[in-house]
Amino acid sequence: MSSSTITVGFPLYPGCTLLDFAGATQVFAYTPGFEVVWIAATRDPVPTTESVSVMPGATFDDHPPLSILFMPGGGSDGVGAAMLDPAFQGWLKQTAAQAEWVGSVCTGAFILAAAGLFDGCQATTYWSARSVLELFPKVELVPGYPRWHLDEERKRFSGGGISSSIDLALKLVETIAGRDAAQTSQLFVQYAPSPPVHAGDPTEASPELVISVTQSQASFTAGLIAATRQVLACEGSAA
Amino acid sequence: MSSSTITVGFPLYPGCTLLDFAGATQVFAYTPGFEVVWIAATRDPVPTTESVSVMPGATFDDHPPLSILFMPGGGSDGVGAAMLDPAFQGWLKQTAAQAEWVGSVCTGAFILAAAGLFDGCQATTYWSARSVLELFPKVELVPGYPRWHLDEERKRFSGGGISSSIDLALKLVETIAGRDAAQTSQLFVQYAPSPPVHAGDPTEASPELVISVTQSQASFTAGLIAATRQVLACEGSAA
Repeated sequence: MSSSTITVGFPLYPGCTLLDFAGATQVFAYTPGFEVVWIAATRDPVPTTESVSVMPGATFDDHPPLSILFMPGGGSDGVGAAMLDPAFQGWLKQTAAQAEWVGSVCTGAFILAAAGLFDGCQATTYWSARSVLELFPKVELVPGYPRWHLDEERKRFSGGGISSSIDLALKLVETIAGRDAAQTSQLFVQYAPSPPVHAGDPTEASPELVISVTQSQASFTAGLIAATRQVLACEGSAA
Repeated sequence: MSSSTITVGFPLYPGCTLLDFAGATQVFAYTPGFEVVWIAATRDPVPTTESVSVMPGATFDDHPPLSILFMPGGGSDGVGAAMLDPAFQGWLKQTAAQAEWVGSVCTGAFILAAAGLFDGCQATTYWSARSVLELFPKVELVPGYPRWHLDEERKRFSGGGISSSIDLALKLVETIAGRDAAQTSQLFVQYAPSPPVHAGDPTEASPELVISVTQSQASFTAGLIAATRQVLACEGSAA
């Protein structure tokens, strides 16, 4: 690792979502000058929402300094726990203060919002969780379903759901290291996407499908609302 | 797991590439009626080409029956070792004979070709490895840089490089479970890709970038050629 290496840290927690961090990991790992580290509370395997597990390469106590702190999203149980865990939130605030860029993809936005790291910022999140993120009074929701949103002055970023992590990571590479670097990484990972179907967000999907998937996510949404209200209630009583 | 669950098995090996299996895993895991299992020689963590590690959920000796055998690609060291490892190749031939669909993404095609599983089939692979795959006399290369290629009669599939695994998995879901299932999974993972740059394959990238990346992959390409020649030499001496 040279002194100019840009280290991207992904905090992992039980119930985080695989492609949220794996997509961005792939882009950064194949960009010259970048390196990736997966970080968790312990070095035990971390189970994801896909019923698979991954290995952290470092813990909250021994990870290298981070240039970019990239928070993945997850299911409501995992995200809610990370929003309400004082140790996780304490590490997050401390580490974010030392990173150059801080941001999230998908429901990772709720974990950063709980830490106040999106206060006064615009942010986006998973398509069906947008209205829940609006419960945070200091977070301004970006309109629509963007793949990424960057606040270059505050050095904050956020992405849409799950697969957005690839586009978001490429945008960060382009912003930080330039267009040539982003194109190099894109060609390495052969990212010329061409989905065989076209229902990737509510602007593409049929209203019936959007309603059906939203209904199937009722407990996910309820879990996010409950955790968000609990965070806001604690803030209210502490103020 | 109901009796009608479609189990997708991803064989992992040291030096496989993360998004090759993580992208497809995400799609299948969020498709109702599908489940995913990561399989390896042992239950030890498997290091990928991104300098991260993942945990197999089963071994070659104890995995459940597979409906779909999905071989990820990797670097030339990992792919070459899997092409030339009699135990890996033996398991692969036996397991493929019992799976309904068998295929690969990226340089995983070389591992299947070494096992003869693409004999008499068309297949595609990572963009810069296409000419090497042509060394297999019984494999017919698909023209261009398709994201996926399915042989519905032989029940074989292959994908382009790395990120192609997402499009390929959606195409398999569409083919096996129907368009509604593919669209449901696509909306769950918010896969409405919109890259900020456009250099994802040699039809999009500048000739200068294609040459530069190809040159940086000289040892990767040489490794694939050497392993392929060794496989073909063994076949020749056995014939």
